[in-house]
Amino acid sequence: MDCIRNRRTIRKYKQDDVSPALLDQLLEDSFRASTMGNMQLYSVVVTRDSQMKERLAPAHFNQPMVTNAPVVLTFCADFNRFSKWCRLRKTEPGYDNLISFLNAASDTLLVVQNFCTLAEAHGLGICYLGTTIYNPDKIIEVLNLPELVMPIATITVGYPDECPAQPDRLPIKGIIHQETYADYESVDIDRIYEYKESLSENKHFVEVNGKETLAQVFTDIRYRKTDNESMSEALLKTLKRQGFLK
Amino acid sequence: MDCIRNRRTIRKYKQDDVSPALLDQLLEDSFRASTMGNMQLYSVVVTRDSQMKERLAPAHFNQPMVTNAPVVLTFCADFNRFSKWCRLRKTEPGYDNLISFLNAASDTLLVVQNFCTLAEAHGLGICYLGTTIYNPDKIIEVLNLPELVMPIATITVGYPDECPAQPDRLPIKGIIHQETYADYESVDIDRIYEYKESLSENKHFVEVNGKETLAQVFTDIRYRKTDNESMSEALLKTLKRQGFLK
Repeated sequence: MDCIRNRRTIRKYKQDDVSPALLDQLLEDSFRASTMGNMQLYSVVVTRDSQMKERLAPAHFNQPMVTNAPVVLTFCADFNRFSKWCRLRKTEPGYDNLISFLNAASDTLLVVQNFCTLAEAHGLGICYLGTTIYNPDKIIEVLNLPELVMPIATITVGYPDECPAQPDRLPIKGIIHQETYADYESVDIDRIYEYKESLSENKHFVEVNGKETLAQVFTDIRYRKTDNESMSEALLKTLKRQGFLK
Repeated sequence: MDCIRNRRTIRKYKQDDVSPALLDQLLEDSFRASTMGNMQLYSVVVTRDSQMKERLAPAHFNQPMVTNAPVVLTFCADFNRFSKWCRLRKTEPGYDNLISFLNAASDTLLVVQNFCTLAEAHGLGICYLGTTIYNPDKIIEVLNLPELVMPIATITVGYPDECPAQPDRLPIKGIIHQETYADYESVDIDRIYEYKESLSENKHFVEVNGKETLAQVFTDIRYRKTDNESMSEALLKTLKRQGFLK
């Protein structure tokens, strides 16, 4: 399991293809993840065609991995397949609601992580694109996703052409709680974020952005309240459009 | 990676303890999963105390794993820690919204699956409890979760005291789409669900429940529309209460 401990996100890939047989095998094994009532509430759309990658790229803010990776995978929460089965088997499905969305999204994300672990164990590199839920409408259009299907995560896949440094992680005592959640005092927060704030790349990040603290880089530049609020509105609309919310 | 391919959910555990050092190591390694902007938007609450397990059990419909497993882990989406850091570093966080909840839930579920893989690779057995999002209020109360913290998944952990058969999975052609989502025709649905419907345990399941089709067991007994709708209402209320929705 060293590959989990030593993993790093790969954004630059060799031009070598990922064989369809290997990809199918990795996906098939990833589907062994736990799933709600063994319903397997997910679908995966494989993008290899370069024109399709070009069409997906804007939804991912044109991050170069989307067009440069040999394979782009869009993992979707899917209650469409199961609902169609219900209707063909003389019963009315009742999965056009928020809890069903969250059940399907959970199923999906467990498979995503399983796939990433398997891919990395086979010498592939992956990048998880969090942008999928920022621009779901565009992705729905390009991939032709019907009602009760929502894109949740996009993974770019290929053979690594870089070996970046591993990013820092918070000390585990800042994340693990015993028996009940021990809310954080100022002294705890100082201790938890001390190492991250001490890193020269983060100090540089603060400086070039003309900020006073690293937290301000997050709130003022990377993940802004106004952006989050407009994306939340868009997300609610898309959940309604895809039939998961009234 | 055979342990991913051969995995099965374990609901019966030996009384042997899971050492705190091993648990910490597995969690620490699991935190290597991809995370939005390296924010690590999750917390884990470890339950070992039997009285605490008794208090959690009703939220999980008294499934016996909760009180019988040596360790119960509740993985939570957490924007509380990050927001406290922002406030202590002279800036106002903007993460009290739905997209931030989904970002944190995604981070959390990637860690959950990583943890499960690592635990299984170390000879432990796990059971994923989907009930966590059905009764979040009760869990929030017992674990004392503050605003901007939402329980997402519960995993029971211990050394296996059973080796159940592996459950069926749908054929991968029913889940993987090439380039665009190819919506399902009746003939596709028949083919995808044929094997599942042919299994003697599923036929038995239909019979003992006095139903005509397996799908009816899902819609009428296991995952009913009325339950899903009331749980969706409760989920919306809880997301508001925890500060992720206006």
